[in-house]
Amino acid sequence: MTEDEALRAANAAYYVAFARRDADAMARLWAQEGLSCIHPGWPPLFGRDAVLASYRDIFRNPLQEEIELSAETVIRAGNDGRIVCFERVGPALLVATNWFRKVKGEFRLIHHQASPLPTFEADPPARQTRH
Amino acid sequence: MTEDEALRAANAAYYVAFARRDADAMARLWAQEGLSCIHPGWPPLFGRDAVLASYRDIFRNPLQEEIELSAETVIRAGNDGRIVCFERVGPALLVATNWFRKVKGEFRLIHHQASPLPTFEADPPARQTRH
Repeated sequence: MTEDEALRAANAAYYVAFARRDADAMARLWAQEGLSCIHPGWPPLFGRDAVLASYRDIFRNPLQEEIELSAETVIRAGNDGRIVCFERVGPALLVATNWFRKVKGEFRLIHHQASPLPTFEADPPARQTRH
Repeated sequence: MTEDEALRAANAAYYVAFARRDADAMARLWAQEGLSCIHPGWPPLFGRDAVLASYRDIFRNPLQEEIELSAETVIRAGNDGRIVCFERVGPALLVATNWFRKVKGEFRLIHHQASPLPTFEADPPARQTRH
């Protein structure tokens, strides 16, 4: 497996952990130190405790929708690599950055940020006008 | 100057370049390779040409508002460091990640992502109800 393939595998594991609402798998994916995480519409979270707690909260939310991943772009230099990708979450379209650092031979997450994009299709005029 | 101070100075220089709409200063702040940039509501941009062109476009926009920076958090490890901070841009509140890598002794930007946060104050109920 090349370094880029290892990075893509780590990114795929993140979305599998999310789909399975597997907080233990999510905890294994994140590094121990120097973490930041910005969920859409949330203030930034720092540190392993706050980041892992946020995923436990999300996984407990019965209204949380599945994430459909697309258009991954890999940028890697040495021990650091990131994947920028689109996340479709129900009607919302997000662009996410997942940043990994190699720790003891494994790419671990150190940063996640997901930003909403306008989705005109998901919000047609008919829904904006109330009669 | 400590490494963290150098990182904060590079981040401050980014906002000075923005405030002055100085495309040349902005170009000097970004690294040559491995760049990604996600402006709020924009699809992701990759590569130096696309990133610098986006700032030239923003700087030419007469409606572009000033950015007021606050609450900077520095996370640094070796040659890589990032600053997560809030940007107030007119009525909008954003959370931004500015990621720098040390190249030939200088911290250069390799990634910027700004995500909108809900600003309830800026969108009071009176504006949502049309009589």
